[in-house]
Amino acid sequence: MPKQVDHRERRELIAHALWQVVDQKGWARTTMREVASEAKVSLGQLQHYFSSRAEMLAFAMEFASEQSSHRVAQGLAALGPEPHPREVLRLVVVDLLPLQPDSRATSRMNAAYVLEAMHDSSLRDQVGNQMRAGRAMVEQLIRQAIDNGQLSSTCDPAIETDLILALSGLAPLLDLKVIEPSAALAAIDKHLSRLFDSP
Amino acid sequence: MPKQVDHRERRELIAHALWQVVDQKGWARTTMREVASEAKVSLGQLQHYFSSRAEMLAFAMEFASEQSSHRVAQGLAALGPEPHPREVLRLVVVDLLPLQPDSRATSRMNAAYVLEAMHDSSLRDQVGNQMRAGRAMVEQLIRQAIDNGQLSSTCDPAIETDLILALSGLAPLLDLKVIEPSAALAAIDKHLSRLFDSP
Repeated sequence: MPKQVDHRERRELIAHALWQVVDQKGWARTTMREVASEAKVSLGQLQHYFSSRAEMLAFAMEFASEQSSHRVAQGLAALGPEPHPREVLRLVVVDLLPLQPDSRATSRMNAAYVLEAMHDSSLRDQVGNQMRAGRAMVEQLIRQAIDNGQLSSTCDPAIETDLILALSGLAPLLDLKVIEPSAALAAIDKHLSRLFDSP
Repeated sequence: MPKQVDHRERRELIAHALWQVVDQKGWARTTMREVASEAKVSLGQLQHYFSSRAEMLAFAMEFASEQSSHRVAQGLAALGPEPHPREVLRLVVVDLLPLQPDSRATSRMNAAYVLEAMHDSSLRDQVGNQMRAGRAMVEQLIRQAIDNGQLSSTCDPAIETDLILALSGLAPLLDLKVIEPSAALAAIDKHLSRLFDSP
């Protein structure tokens, strides 16, 4: 189905253009016209793929989430077979933070997306479901680590999951250069040490 | 100086109106006209107090930060003399999260403010300075707790400060109802227990 592939490719190209524009100007100032110009398509063509700003944002975030899973999967492959859950959680958390160009763009987009979702019910469901899926994945990792004896059986998997996800709260400190990337990594490692090394 | 008091009062009234509008519509959709209407002043009067959206946002956030300090101070007073640093940190973190109507509005405003700051250099300095001041206040609490033997002397104050501030990362999970307020409080208490009870 070459036509569908083209359609998907074009949408991904537009999503990349959207990340660029949002990274430079912020979502509040991003117009469909500017995204079209960045993606080198006409406004009419853009509207063929996305009928509204919100729809474009929703697709861009879905794509960002796929890209993030892809980066994490690549990182996992580099860790070799049966990586320790501590290393897996570290990869997941690091990818949530603006520490590399790709995750920097998507971390900022994500902040805009969450804000936008609070005032748009269709986006709200999508963002909420995406967050719930991410949360479930982390909780599964933690439950498995408890089952395998890598984490203390006194750990509450739900609480530990929320504490892992809370580390994304380092993003604004990094974005505004209140802390250095090395400080964020040290904080993540300290949290993981405390979690995995406690009796 | 009654005139100055009036000026300040009017600006605070406008800041409250801004919170309302942002809470309902999001910053991206907030216009000065709507804020004027919510504050029951004319657009011309509003522009007498604030020459731009960014200036209005900057004042509203400064005011929000004062209000937050005020809420924390009230909470501290309720804890009695010489409260334990663990209780102080708990109050500070809880106030960063959207758990009560006032802090809900300011937590959302804050997210909009941080995003806006990344694309506006004058706001960026203000937000960065405000974050640095908040961070320094938390670090001071932690250093004092170490000096007083309430926290292990092996703690790294900078790392523990960043981990405390990272708990604000629970805000989007609460805003999108991915977790309940009770889960956020359980996560905060678990983190504080681990910090203060570890040898």
